[in-house]
Amino acid sequence: MSAAKFAPKKVVLAYSGGLDTSIILKWLQTEYGCEVVTFTADLGQGEELEPARAKAELMGIKPENIFIEDVREEFVRDFVFPMFRANALYEGLYLLGTSIARPLISKRLVEIAEMTGADAVAHGATGKGNDQVRFELAAYALNPEIKVIAPWREWDLSSRTKLLAFAEENQIPVAKDKRGEAPFSVDANLLHTSSEGKVLEDPAQMAPDYVYQRTVAPEDAPNEPEFIEIGFEKGDAVSINGEAMSPATILTKLNELGGKHGCGRLDFVENRFVGMKSRGIYETPGGAVLLEAHRGIEQITLDSGAGHLKDSLMPRYAELIYNGFWYSPEREMLQAAIDKSQEHVTGTVRVKLYKGAATTVARWSDHSLYSEAHVTFEEDAGAYDQKDAAGFIQLNALRLKLLAARNRRFK
Amino acid sequence: MSAAKFAPKKVVLAYSGGLDTSIILKWLQTEYGCEVVTFTADLGQGEELEPARAKAELMGIKPENIFIEDVREEFVRDFVFPMFRANALYEGLYLLGTSIARPLISKRLVEIAEMTGADAVAHGATGKGNDQVRFELAAYALNPEIKVIAPWREWDLSSRTKLLAFAEENQIPVAKDKRGEAPFSVDANLLHTSSEGKVLEDPAQMAPDYVYQRTVAPEDAPNEPEFIEIGFEKGDAVSINGEAMSPATILTKLNELGGKHGCGRLDFVENRFVGMKSRGIYETPGGAVLLEAHRGIEQITLDSGAGHLKDSLMPRYAELIYNGFWYSPEREMLQAAIDKSQEHVTGTVRVKLYKGAATTVARWSDHSLYSEAHVTFEEDAGAYDQKDAAGFIQLNALRLKLLAARNRRFK
Amino acid sequence: MSAAKFAPKKVVLAYSGGLDTSIILKWLQTEYGCEVVTFTADLGQGEELEPARAKAELMGIKPENIFIEDVREEFVRDFVFPMFRANALYEGLYLLGTSIARPLISKRLVEIAEMTGADAVAHGATGKGNDQVRFELAAYALNPEIKVIAPWREWDLSSRTKLLAFAEENQIPVAKDKRGEAPFSVDANLLHTSSEGKVLEDPAQMAPDYVYQRTVAPEDAPNEPEFIEIGFEKGDAVSINGEAMSPATILTKLNELGGKHGCGRLDFVENRFVGMKSRGIYETPGGAVLLEAHRGIEQITLDSGAGHLKDSLMPRYAELIYNGFWYSPEREMLQAAIDKSQEHVTGTVRVKLYKGAATTVARWSDHSLYSEAHVTFEEDAGAYDQKDAAGFIQLNALRLKLLAARNRRFK
Amino acid sequence: MSAAKFAPKKVVLAYSGGLDTSIILKWLQTEYGCEVVTFTADLGQGEELEPARAKAELMGIKPENIFIEDVREEFVRDFVFPMFRANALYEGLYLLGTSIARPLISKRLVEIAEMTGADAVAHGATGKGNDQVRFELAAYALNPEIKVIAPWREWDLSSRTKLLAFAEENQIPVAKDKRGEAPFSVDANLLHTSSEGKVLEDPAQMAPDYVYQRTVAPEDAPNEPEFIEIGFEKGDAVSINGEAMSPATILTKLNELGGKHGCGRLDFVENRFVGMKSRGIYETPGGAVLLEAHRGIEQITLDSGAGHLKDSLMPRYAELIYNGFWYSPEREMLQAAIDKSQEHVTGTVRVKLYKGAATTVARWSDHSLYSEAHVTFEEDAGAYDQKDAAGFIQLNALRLKLLAARNRRFK
Repeated sequence: MSAAKFAPKKVVLAYSGGLDTSIILKWLQTEYGCEVVTFTADLGQGEELEPARAKAELMGIKPENIFIEDVREEFVRDFVFPMFRANALYEGLYLLGTSIARPLISKRLVEIAEMTGADAVAHGATGKGNDQVRFELAAYALNPEIKVIAPWREWDLSSRTKLLAFAEENQIPVAKDKRGEAPFSVDANLLHTSSEGKVLEDPAQMAPDYVYQRTVAPEDAPNEPEFIEIGFEKGDAVSINGEAMSPATILTKLNELGGKHGCGRLDFVENRFVGMKSRGIYETPGGAVLLEAHRGIEQITLDSGAGHLKDSLMPRYAELIYNGFWYSPEREMLQAAIDKSQEHVTGTVRVKLYKGAATTVARWSDHSLYSEAHVTFEEDAGAYDQKDAAGFIQLNALRLKLLAARNRRFK
Repeated sequence: MSAAKFAPKKVVLAYSGGLDTSIILKWLQTEYGCEVVTFTADLGQGEELEPARAKAELMGIKPENIFIEDVREEFVRDFVFPMFRANALYEGLYLLGTSIARPLISKRLVEIAEMTGADAVAHGATGKGNDQVRFELAAYALNPEIKVIAPWREWDLSSRTKLLAFAEENQIPVAKDKRGEAPFSVDANLLHTSSEGKVLEDPAQMAPDYVYQRTVAPEDAPNEPEFIEIGFEKGDAVSINGEAMSPATILTKLNELGGKHGCGRLDFVENRFVGMKSRGIYETPGGAVLLEAHRGIEQITLDSGAGHLKDSLMPRYAELIYNGFWYSPEREMLQAAIDKSQEHVTGTVRVKLYKGAATTVARWSDHSLYSEAHVTFEEDAGAYDQKDAAGFIQLNALRLKLLAARNRRFK
Repeated sequence: MSAAKFAPKKVVLAYSGGLDTSIILKWLQTEYGCEVVTFTADLGQGEELEPARAKAELMGIKPENIFIEDVREEFVRDFVFPMFRANALYEGLYLLGTSIARPLISKRLVEIAEMTGADAVAHGATGKGNDQVRFELAAYALNPEIKVIAPWREWDLSSRTKLLAFAEENQIPVAKDKRGEAPFSVDANLLHTSSEGKVLEDPAQMAPDYVYQRTVAPEDAPNEPEFIEIGFEKGDAVSINGEAMSPATILTKLNELGGKHGCGRLDFVENRFVGMKSRGIYETPGGAVLLEAHRGIEQITLDSGAGHLKDSLMPRYAELIYNGFWYSPEREMLQAAIDKSQEHVTGTVRVKLYKGAATTVARWSDHSLYSEAHVTFEEDAGAYDQKDAAGFIQLNALRLKLLAARNRRFK
Repeated sequence: MSAAKFAPKKVVLAYSGGLDTSIILKWLQTEYGCEVVTFTADLGQGEELEPARAKAELMGIKPENIFIEDVREEFVRDFVFPMFRANALYEGLYLLGTSIARPLISKRLVEIAEMTGADAVAHGATGKGNDQVRFELAAYALNPEIKVIAPWREWDLSSRTKLLAFAEENQIPVAKDKRGEAPFSVDANLLHTSSEGKVLEDPAQMAPDYVYQRTVAPEDAPNEPEFIEIGFEKGDAVSINGEAMSPATILTKLNELGGKHGCGRLDFVENRFVGMKSRGIYETPGGAVLLEAHRGIEQITLDSGAGHLKDSLMPRYAELIYNGFWYSPEREMLQAAIDKSQEHVTGTVRVKLYKGAATTVARWSDHSLYSEAHVTFEEDAGAYDQKDAAGFIQLNALRLKLLAARNRRFK
């Protein structure tokens, strides 16, 4: 729309070095005759980044316009961990692995645009998905003047054949294994790998085994359970088995452990923000372990008032992240509430990993609110007076009695 | 309190036939000199009921005052299934197996009191737990004139020794295996078995294997996964592997299947309504499978508006059930909203059971809202115009742009 | 977008008979060469409808294609009253007078389209406002095949001069007082009159007196208060001063009474769904009285559980109506919950009307939950045992004490 | 209960100097033989405090045990203003004037107990009301070891006659006008005056005029409206008519202005936390003006995401304050979210005061998000592309279309 009519002078492109974003790079150059700046981020997707530099140079990008950055620590510290403080699950099950990576990419795109004097940013997301929304809302929220170019919504390269033809015409090298169509589409970062489309499009068909890339099948996982201890401070994981680690290191290690035991697989049909349902296969090995452990430590360190409020806010919080509103006042308000609750979420959880499941089996903390003195079946030395319960119940019942008496009059 | 001063003439007691409720029966007779009516319900706890009749008769209860009933179908149809329509989880994890059985027991206690002209009901729950609250709130909500006797809050039988002495004095037979103290306390019904207390009181210690009674350990479950198909109509399970079954039969069958595969174990520290934390071991084999499958069928039959509203109401709904407010206007309001959402939650889900996990792997329905025509990566024949997304994003972004412009002025 | 490319054969137009919709009528005929069906509804906007027939005929609409209907009773019974059961206020203050009328108009447009074999409907709302969204979402929700034509988003009649030129070219009569531009824009129906735009566009400037059309200024209202009694049944108003009346008659009468006393004026800056803020002047005389009275009767007939749940759902409910989601599963779910709560909202409220304010001063009901026996400062004959409060407080305090003890350890 | 059995050595009493708390003072001395410390706070209730010192001395309280403090600034700054940032209304209408004062009193009671080595605090609230809960929850949340003595729940002075007899026996002077029973009970502080009980106990009867103490009747208010301008910074009022003032000064001034114009009267039936309904007459003149103005400034400075989230959290927030959970983690979490939203709630509101109503008539701010460029009915120079709305609507409609198509298949 408005964006379509806009002719950018200099565009910062989220560039993976792969075929699709290489085509976009070239298309931006030919369609708009504009200067292109490339931004390639290591979010833990497990690919070499340096090849992207060579490819960009080959396509005429000036060295000072090539940005390649390892943002893994920032990703986990400022995005993944704050989200896990909320125990966020979209539609009850999805750990938001794709959603949470987009705002960081947009943030860097906008910052690089501001540094390099670019007037636009561009991304390779299609017009059907959520990612376009996430990229663009984040960009606009960070710089209201920036323009966003979404080639997939603009160009007429609507089939694989046309794309490959464009690549050929423009001397973009196409790896042999990219000539055919991939049987499904993949997104990956340190938190998760998602697969969707093509062979996965029928939710009545089980996903083929070859879709899974990051976790072993539970059937192939070790026959012995493994027990690990995760340490938390103020709601964030800080150690594994007693060894302190940085945020990205912890998530990497949890991915390794979770993946080995087949944890974090999800076959899911979700509601996209753009209005349709889609089916995805998600693998979030470390995330699944982390969620379980975080809940475990909250069980003893969070009181019911805080915990129940958190639970009731979580669906809205997860929806905001899924829909692309990370940089919105309401997400920040919820984050303020959630972070406030985490001040004493400090302690250690023992988690059992076995054949696809991560299960809390023990937890302890100096900050524990669990009081054996109160709960014990034994004599409690006056910690709790059972007779108090009578009054508690009477007053909780009072309105129900008044209701019952009223309602009986009208039966 | 007020209840303590009240002297009942005739009391309906929730009577299991076990030692504790036999002592209560006798205590009611001796303390108040009142007539006792016993109510023994088969909620699927897996115990013979008829021995309770003999024991009651032995303690002088008139035959017409002995009520023994199989309420399993009512339990599942009117309590368990409505709750599962909500995907209810207390504090993110607990399937509310104890909570949901209490209102039904109270309902029958009150009804029997009205039939037999009793002026009070009595239960065997202690003054520290949630069950006393659940029993009593439900009773008062159904009959505002009824009195509730809670012997554990009144008597001075505060230790095992005193209890056994009272039993002996009163010729209450004590089974040999009941002479010692049980290492933990158990509650069971068709939905779950819970264990708590004693050896489980330290949440930093792993629960011993012998606590689990209803599920095999995942390690001992079959090495081959089992795939089952659960059919739903309007949100309720109606068939397994194509065979139509009654509510209680379905849950029984799911318990068998889930239990065999080690599904539905939970080691949990929860917040009791009475203000303390407690640790419980829950086994809900059929329930765990049912929750997973219900979510699976909702994924394709529920739209996002309904689904997200349900998700946001669920924590409050679960809290109400946990706290004993089944018979409250607010639970009924939420139920009306939830039931409204289930009109098209009809279809079939394939679930994989393996080593402790129940996982949706496929789902289909004539009522499906999933549209491959819209979501496909292939040509969609005009089902969806990608250019619409530009306008969608622009208007969603407008307020964020206005915010960003404003906030920049104050940096 | 997609709609723009579509060429309708037969269009049902929401036609007021005024200049703007007459221009749209002609534009549809000339732009698309399609047959036009007109629908003119009496929603209580206070204008004669029959002139619309003559105008439509003059523009060549066949008599069988002219639909003129009095929908006031349906409007109040099926839209206004259900909404008032919720005490709905958008952004704390706005009674949603425009929002609630749109779904009914769309419903009739779609029904008439189905009756007359039309393939599209058309409305006269602009591309900046909420009404386009409300019209179109309702239409699509009722008939997924229908197309909606929104001429203001399509044509190039972007200025008053161009519009008048088009009218002149096409022999559309223009009343003299319509030649100049109106100083603001007005929407009216039985529930309210809204004014916005032009002289009202600066929210720092007080609205001029001449904007108000339906209420006297509080300063000009009678110097004596007037007391009226409104009777309710199941949440809906059914009588005034003891006289039973139909829904539309009651609202008409309340408008008269409220308007005479200057009630229901609102100067408001709101957030439109399309992302911008706008300023409106609303006059909802009868609605303001009705809201006050409904709250008054709920005070004695609704219990706190139901009332607090309603309060917490209301903002979402109001937002859904404002945003145009009347016909959505989530609005229907909330309505089911709200309606469930109203079963005993029956009784009478005395309201004082004076100089702009409507104030509940007394209320009574056979369904009242108010118990003087419990609340009295006098002896209560055992209705309430004050000692119960001690236990109630102790158990409510328990978690706070455990928190305080924990937090003290870390100071 | 537990508290009842406790024998305090030294008690800090919330002491007004009036008859009731003087009787309590003496009763504590005689019943427990304990040392009494008095705390008398100026919360703006409009009474002289120094007489309380003389009375306390007369009853044998040591000078160093008499604490008389002006806490008005703290009250408004740390309690009233944070609450008004939330636009808190209990059950839609009540400005929480009593509720918000209790935590501050408890805070000082506990602090003085810690300073003076007292082991208990005492208050004069009855066992039927909310205030006992508020006092005690706050005290326990601040010091888990403190004991609270609530004489009204303990003693047998259950009638006026017995109270006066006790006073006489103990040489407590009784003012002549206190010999008879007051026709209703009053609580007052800088935010409000509440009246309840006795002549007000029948909610079907209009409250007599003499109940109102702090506001003129709207009928007696000036015949000319008065316009005032309230300045806000980060959500708090900071000036009136351009003059900067301290929090307590502002509220005092607003009370004067609002009271003169009859603003802030409320005749209300509410749900007490202890389970019964009660009827109160509230006068909150300054608060009513402040709420209106705060909403006015939020209208232009808060975006819809933040505003709607605030609206949806407000009922829970108000309920927490009403129920006495000011010092709870969940109130603090909500406060963190609310405060986060107020960072740009800065600007000025013009409010019209007239015959009982306070009405925003204009508002302006450097922080305004209102964009005339976007909303204008005139040419907007490209600020907004109306065609974007088509895509916005199409994608919002998509799920509704899919629903409609599905639902049609099952009709």
